[in-house]
Amino acid sequence: MAKQNAFYAQSGGVTAVINASACGVIETARQHGDAIGTVYAGRNGIIGALTEELIDTSALSDQQVQQLRHTPGGAFGSCRYKLKDIDSHRSQYERLIEVFKAHDIGYFFYNGGNDSADTCLKVSQLADAMGYPLKAVHIPKTVDNDLPVTDNCPGFGSVAKYIAVSTQEAAMDIESMCATSTKVFILEVMGRHAGWIAAAGGLAGHKEGDAPHLIIFPEIPFDRATVMARVDDCVKKFGFCVMVVSEGARYADGTFLADAGTTDAFGHKQLGGVAPTLAGMIKQDLGHKFHWAVADYLQRSARHLASATDVEQAYAVGAAAVKLALEGKNSVMPTIVRTQDTPYAWEIGEACLSDIANVEKMMPRDFITPDGFGISELGRQYLSPLIQGEDCPPYVNGLPQYIRLQHQLVAKKLPDFEP
Amino acid sequence: MAKQNAFYAQSGGVTAVINASACGVIETARQHGDAIGTVYAGRNGIIGALTEELIDTSALSDQQVQQLRHTPGGAFGSCRYKLKDIDSHRSQYERLIEVFKAHDIGYFFYNGGNDSADTCLKVSQLADAMGYPLKAVHIPKTVDNDLPVTDNCPGFGSVAKYIAVSTQEAAMDIESMCATSTKVFILEVMGRHAGWIAAAGGLAGHKEGDAPHLIIFPEIPFDRATVMARVDDCVKKFGFCVMVVSEGARYADGTFLADAGTTDAFGHKQLGGVAPTLAGMIKQDLGHKFHWAVADYLQRSARHLASATDVEQAYAVGAAAVKLALEGKNSVMPTIVRTQDTPYAWEIGEACLSDIANVEKMMPRDFITPDGFGISELGRQYLSPLIQGEDCPPYVNGLPQYIRLQHQLVAKKLPDFEP
Repeated sequence: MAKQNAFYAQSGGVTAVINASACGVIETARQHGDAIGTVYAGRNGIIGALTEELIDTSALSDQQVQQLRHTPGGAFGSCRYKLKDIDSHRSQYERLIEVFKAHDIGYFFYNGGNDSADTCLKVSQLADAMGYPLKAVHIPKTVDNDLPVTDNCPGFGSVAKYIAVSTQEAAMDIESMCATSTKVFILEVMGRHAGWIAAAGGLAGHKEGDAPHLIIFPEIPFDRATVMARVDDCVKKFGFCVMVVSEGARYADGTFLADAGTTDAFGHKQLGGVAPTLAGMIKQDLGHKFHWAVADYLQRSARHLASATDVEQAYAVGAAAVKLALEGKNSVMPTIVRTQDTPYAWEIGEACLSDIANVEKMMPRDFITPDGFGISELGRQYLSPLIQGEDCPPYVNGLPQYIRLQHQLVAKKLPDFEP
Repeated sequence: MAKQNAFYAQSGGVTAVINASACGVIETARQHGDAIGTVYAGRNGIIGALTEELIDTSALSDQQVQQLRHTPGGAFGSCRYKLKDIDSHRSQYERLIEVFKAHDIGYFFYNGGNDSADTCLKVSQLADAMGYPLKAVHIPKTVDNDLPVTDNCPGFGSVAKYIAVSTQEAAMDIESMCATSTKVFILEVMGRHAGWIAAAGGLAGHKEGDAPHLIIFPEIPFDRATVMARVDDCVKKFGFCVMVVSEGARYADGTFLADAGTTDAFGHKQLGGVAPTLAGMIKQDLGHKFHWAVADYLQRSARHLASATDVEQAYAVGAAAVKLALEGKNSVMPTIVRTQDTPYAWEIGEACLSDIANVEKMMPRDFITPDGFGISELGRQYLSPLIQGEDCPPYVNGLPQYIRLQHQLVAKKLPDFEP
């Protein structure tokens, strides 16, 4: 087999561990220098392939590549850009193949979620149709944890750990003050369609009365009266109430709480923000003193609190992608296969992209307690292993020592292209 | 000197390290069993003294006391409750002395901010006037860092580290996506009157162009046109803009950007929501895609990311308070004295409560850059040492192992009292 180059790109919302996957790809490729030449990374994801902005990762020292393992964000730039429909915009896909051909790229590693799995599959199919030999492997990544087949998605374990720890810590703060101060605390977390991240907040509690007292899942239609009654009961019984609320919380008719055109507790028109919306209801209906937090990007970039399990898995899927490609596999994705719950054990598996692309894995109803406000034992059994272990970055001067790469671009060989 | 008991209470907003001070008090008192009998802790702060709800800390094992050092929140309960004016409500102060007398309490350790320094001083004066021998020592604690005389306040260093690290991490996330996604990110932080916490965000950046690109301080009057122009410039120049905004941000006329219209138990205005308010302006004036986060209680309870320097200082002021009392000192507060910037060195000093009570230390103007949107070298020199070092709590099952105490109350000896 002639030696060929590889192309790697990051796609969609970045995570605390997506660079650990990049590290897995590059280190493994370097171990197979007989088969893989240079690993090029797309500047700002797949856009970099379209515009022929390729970052030469061979310019990175082994130590720099190692540092990617503990660096959050997307080191090469990511993008929210979905390739257009292949039938009406075939030229976009053809351009990708042209760029690959111009730079002798035989391996395509695409690191993302549902959309990018679909793109990866289409690129692979078009390369095939055009007679261009390409091994296209998708590398799973998404804090939303919504890819099918794989047990979980790298990126999720770390955001889960962040939300569990933050809920635990904030709850201790509130509990110690609740006699004379805040009675209700609301933490808004990500997850527009599925409640995986909100569910992780449930790991902070272990027994009746522990925070969080209520989790508001997108899966459970929001009923204001029921929720308010629960909050009030909770304040009466425990003195305080901690809520973890998914940004995707919605009414039975599908309307998001945050998009409901309401005003917050301060009378300001809402600009998104389910936490202040809920706070407004609590003020209006119950009159309890409240506080709210919106973790937003903090949750998915918190590499300082990454799950060691998540970091290992993110690295492993990156490394496995290279190995699969070298075995001649195409249109596949390495998966995480859970072989045992306690103690947790996992191994790397393999899935066809046609089983992954555009399929969204929802949270099973039985991961949620029957009342709809907590996680069940089954849910806990699934989630708990994913936050195990700590993987602290090195610190210098009190701050994590993350690497910020200078992007060294390869000389262009093709005419400009407007994506 | 006859052996007497001690009373310790936590006051006001809790911090990630207030229990480290409690640990310092209890461990040091245990080392001086010849002079100090039992340390009683007020349940929910000073209210516990008024209602005679005293927690017997002698029921705690040495190991449990040790665990307080790495546990956030207020382990004995804190309160937002300010004793009323001594002239019109003398009975409240007399009640405290009665309770102290009933339980043979000769040492009063009050762990809080400005308000509690004032209370501690008044209790000391009244005890003196009533001929009751009491050594009253205030232990500094406040994330707001606004106590005078002391170099800094335990609790601040950890929230500063949390904000610096969170700003750094979120900035890496945004930078990697800004070509096609979010251009402006706003992190709202605590600090009603002084911009100490917002300033800490500045530690995330080191050179021109580094995030945060704008810090909005309460000290600098907010001018919408100027700020919007800066944000827009920043997006044009760097592709994105990261802002750290103090909850106390205000216009030239003193109006807060986000005024909740409600007041807390101390009569302070309850603020919240400056981040969404600013986001609204960015949407209206510039049209850039934005995201915002409100760290709220997460920032002051994040013991998992505590500054080791802060933990040491919190412990040291607790220990020093006991030693000062044993030396016969009264109406004093141990302080932190900076003896050197680089490498940072400090020692424990001592201040009279009359110099502390009700005095608010504002941030010097020369800690802020001339343009009003960043921290100066002088500011960095002051702040940087306070976030040095990590002090990770132990983890079990992926979560920090914090201690939650069972409050064992001492039998009451006095009639009920309505505070």
